Amino acid sequence: MDQQPADNKGTLGGMLRDDAFKSKTIVITGGGTGLGRAMGTYFLKLGANLVITSRKLDILQKTAVEMEGETGGKVLAVSCDVRNYDEVENVLKSSVEAFGRVDALVNNAAGNFISPTERLSANAFSTIIDIVLKGTVNCSLALGKHWIKEKQPGNILNIITTYAFTGSAYVVPSACAKGGVLALTRSLAVEWGRHQIRTNAIAPGPFPTKGAWERLLPGDMAQKFSFEKRVPLKRVGQHQELANLAAFLISDFSGYINGDVISIDGGEWLQGAGQFSGLEMLTDEMWDGIEQITRNVKGS
Amino acid sequence: MDQQPADNKGTLGGMLRDDAFKSKTIVITGGGTGLGRAMGTYFLKLGANLVITSRKLDILQKTAVEMEGETGGKVLAVSCDVRNYDEVENVLKSSVEAFGRVDALVNNAAGNFISPTERLSANAFSTIIDIVLKGTVNCSLALGKHWIKEKQPGNILNIITTYAFTGSAYVVPSACAKGGVLALTRSLAVEWGRHQIRTNAIAPGPFPTKGAWERLLPGDMAQKFSFEKRVPLKRVGQHQELANLAAFLISDFSGYINGDVISIDGGEWLQGAGQFSGLEMLTDEMWDGIEQITRNVKGS
Amino acid sequence: MDQQPADNKGTLGGMLRDDAFKSKTIVITGGGTGLGRAMGTYFLKLGANLVITSRKLDILQKTAVEMEGETGGKVLAVSCDVRNYDEVENVLKSSVEAFGRVDALVNNAAGNFISPTERLSANAFSTIIDIVLKGTVNCSLALGKHWIKEKQPGNILNIITTYAFTGSAYVVPSACAKGGVLALTRSLAVEWGRHQIRTNAIAPGPFPTKGAWERLLPGDMAQKFSFEKRVPLKRVGQHQELANLAAFLISDFSGYINGDVISIDGGEWLQGAGQFSGLEMLTDEMWDGIEQITRNVKGS
Amino acid sequence: MDQQPADNKGTLGGMLRDDAFKSKTIVITGGGTGLGRAMGTYFLKLGANLVITSRKLDILQKTAVEMEGETGGKVLAVSCDVRNYDEVENVLKSSVEAFGRVDALVNNAAGNFISPTERLSANAFSTIIDIVLKGTVNCSLALGKHWIKEKQPGNILNIITTYAFTGSAYVVPSACAKGGVLALTRSLAVEWGRHQIRTNAIAPGPFPTKGAWERLLPGDMAQKFSFEKRVPLKRVGQHQELANLAAFLISDFSGYINGDVISIDGGEWLQGAGQFSGLEMLTDEMWDGIEQITRNVKGS
Repeated sequence: MDQQPADNKGTLGGMLRDDAFKSKTIVITGGGTGLGRAMGTYFLKLGANLVITSRKLDILQKTAVEMEGETGGKVLAVSCDVRNYDEVENVLKSSVEAFGRVDALVNNAAGNFISPTERLSANAFSTIIDIVLKGTVNCSLALGKHWIKEKQPGNILNIITTYAFTGSAYVVPSACAKGGVLALTRSLAVEWGRHQIRTNAIAPGPFPTKGAWERLLPGDMAQKFSFEKRVPLKRVGQHQELANLAAFLISDFSGYINGDVISIDGGEWLQGAGQFSGLEMLTDEMWDGIEQITRNVKGS
Repeated sequence: MDQQPADNKGTLGGMLRDDAFKSKTIVITGGGTGLGRAMGTYFLKLGANLVITSRKLDILQKTAVEMEGETGGKVLAVSCDVRNYDEVENVLKSSVEAFGRVDALVNNAAGNFISPTERLSANAFSTIIDIVLKGTVNCSLALGKHWIKEKQPGNILNIITTYAFTGSAYVVPSACAKGGVLALTRSLAVEWGRHQIRTNAIAPGPFPTKGAWERLLPGDMAQKFSFEKRVPLKRVGQHQELANLAAFLISDFSGYINGDVISIDGGEWLQGAGQFSGLEMLTDEMWDGIEQITRNVKGS
Repeated sequence: MDQQPADNKGTLGGMLRDDAFKSKTIVITGGGTGLGRAMGTYFLKLGANLVITSRKLDILQKTAVEMEGETGGKVLAVSCDVRNYDEVENVLKSSVEAFGRVDALVNNAAGNFISPTERLSANAFSTIIDIVLKGTVNCSLALGKHWIKEKQPGNILNIITTYAFTGSAYVVPSACAKGGVLALTRSLAVEWGRHQIRTNAIAPGPFPTKGAWERLLPGDMAQKFSFEKRVPLKRVGQHQELANLAAFLISDFSGYINGDVISIDGGEWLQGAGQFSGLEMLTDEMWDGIEQITRNVKGS
Repeated sequence: MDQQPADNKGTLGGMLRDDAFKSKTIVITGGGTGLGRAMGTYFLKLGANLVITSRKLDILQKTAVEMEGETGGKVLAVSCDVRNYDEVENVLKSSVEAFGRVDALVNNAAGNFISPTERLSANAFSTIIDIVLKGTVNCSLALGKHWIKEKQPGNILNIITTYAFTGSAYVVPSACAKGGVLALTRSLAVEWGRHQIRTNAIAPGPFPTKGAWERLLPGDMAQKFSFEKRVPLKRVGQHQELANLAAFLISDFSGYINGDVISIDGGEWLQGAGQFSGLEMLTDEMWDGIEQITRNVKGS
């Protein structure tokens, strides 16, 4: 087991049975690029109807056609700035018109600045909080009101990050906003559980996507930073691995998981956090030497 | 030990030596009422100069005079809506003019709605996120930029809540916003630590304050909910207990605590996470009644 | 989605493709009863060879035959007290002899006392710590040494509980021991990740199993305690739901999840942390009565 | 504020009023060396009677005399292997005989191996679990039974480590055992809170002590590992800083803190955990360059 190839495209197959999402409709915000597209494509292969949103309708529509071509599924592209509640309600309305119902929402739209915090303006913070936190609130609120009114079960999946709970330097607006989404996840899971609406989150570690990573870490920075070394498994993630986890959480097969945030990072945050994990740098020979000296217990 | 009286006014004395904060200036947002006032009063007794802010200048100025009378210290009242970065910068400017420097910031201003989430508007969410999360960001950013530019050490203390990390039903906008502040705390602690700026948070459990609790839980709801039973120690907190912890974290005596969030709740969340999740017992009709009364924001 | 039946036997189907575990060998400690048996049965259906262990060989062998009959798979029953490292090594040796290799280990053997802590002896604590924590260490150590020596990838899955991280009153020996297993999970995930050994944990909420629950909560206590009300989804878990999650984590489909602990509790701990803390309602006399019945360990 | 000297002996004064612990008796296991001795010395200065334990009575008695000379307080040295419940009960009996009562217990005795886990024997694990976890259980159980029987309030303070919750490679037996103590802390805080017994924990980061660190990291390893760089505040901790926190938690001034674990590590674990915190390596000039390119939001 675990003999994955080290590159992030990978050859890993899909996990679920082919018809697992038959007649289900799933909305993914920011679903036209990167990880959102990877998840959406897999949902289509499992039989789902897909709704993707973004502020750039022309690109989105082109993507929708490509995704339909690749999978044979149906994709609705709806223009939407998630910061605007009316536009979010329009996504819901359009989805119901097109597919009759919505079964699940994946809050995936995001924004980020990588910068020392003291170089940022209050406005920069505000923009990220609006897109990530208020955007997620808007979509969850619109769908939740709809599901509760219609007495229909629902499913919310929030894509956050491990630094939503650890925090991180140099991406602080995003950390704040994602931290807020984490608390939203746990709160709605409890409050809306009795309406049979489940709410969970995924905290991905390094899953490189060409566009986003180059914008975030320009030049040779991404190389220098070498995420692989920060990860116990010594590789970055494959998009299909994220898609598998997302499909599992959206599906009925995970029906008793509610309010959980699942990290999929190869152990990255734990490696950094553990006080003595850096001793990985020692060779077998060095350990042999140490072993001669240290085999006595610091006693009670 | 631990033979505290059961009422929340208490007879508990102050902890630190009398001159512990001599010649220090501390800014507390929302410092004119409730827990903010309790912390500020103790800081004054320890010798600090105090800056308190709020949107209501007349009440604030009256409070400043009362606090000066009680403690013999100096209190500057500055009008400020923490959502407005210019007003925040004015607090900093006024504080430096009055006292020569600012040593510490306590982000205490807050707002809350208690309500089933599906009854809230996107706008209600937005208001709480703006006051609590963006307000805290604004104050931290203004002070941090100042301290780093002046090469001066600093200290940020964020008042959050236990449901910042557990989430809670029925106070979801506040949970989101406080969850964001928690991630801010951990992020800035790491990034600004090398500038000798420490950042920590306190997560208080039930510390009743007349005004806030009556607004939040109208009628006999507060009684019915009986926070005491939810707490292993079978009592609510005393304001001086919170003030002691805040003084400790602001002082040099805690100089190696950085990025931590300290719960002071008698063990409440461990006995039953999600401080307000028990409100599940309320019927729709009861919520209708409450809605008539509570739709005003406990402001900054 | 999420239209699960409310009873815990359920009609939920298996999630993975039928041959997902073909030619894999999986060891489950305590695999002959309850949740261990449910997981093992599903692994067999997916094509795995199974090794189950327990101290009671005769019951175990009978179970092995039943499981083979139900699934058409191969089950090896090996007598083992997980507290004894030699017996653990014998499980490994027997498994390799029977199936050529071992691919994954599920640490599921456990013991528990439900009691006010001050009524327990140091010896009672010791017994639970030995079975749960040392037992899990022993099995992980034997398999890890083997996999590293053979340069073979591996997979460790630890069954813990939500009170491993929240703590809980009245089950303190188990909380301590499971808390230790949680730290073990995160530590080995980091240290052994580079050997391509993944380590994860599942924290199940209420998944009633006839034997264990009756031993733990005798008489009508289980009824009175009504776990369903503590869970936002208002139902207990189905065994197949746990089996699905375990199969996902053991499989290559979760290849980038490492060091994570996944709660599958319907949101129970978020609604009210400390699974057994509500037993505070019991009087001393009720505990006296219970004590007559429950002083036997749910063994490995 | 926060202008601490960089060396770990420091000039930091004591925090509490001089008579804060007058007529209190505090037991510290492993109290004769390192951090235990630093805490105990400060407790004595605050007026406490002190009981220190260790397996080596001759060294312990010499230390007791030194501590009495330094502080003018009273120190009782009692030989005790915390793994042996009878010896623990003898500590309690001797303490009550000498000082009339015991008010607080600091579980500080510990043991550790630094080693790749696959090089350890099951027996090595067992030894550390027995000293750290069972030892802490034994002391807490003996004192708890005593306090509950005598209807006397109590206070338990467990010295753990940040890797009790993050885990860590290369110190896995200690991680397991301390993880167990963390769960014990949270469990007893809830269960014994109604008996007015508070239970808390401190998770220290790098506080070098000559003996322990040289045993743990022999030769020039401690130098190479350079803990300072792993800490946002860029220094290790001073013993008095830990003593201040311990005194606060033992004192009545923290009377509403219960079940909490307070990290005192300068932000160490958060720096490692945060995904982008490593960008600290970038210079101001590099950030200038990046700033030209990245100021566009990855939008919804």
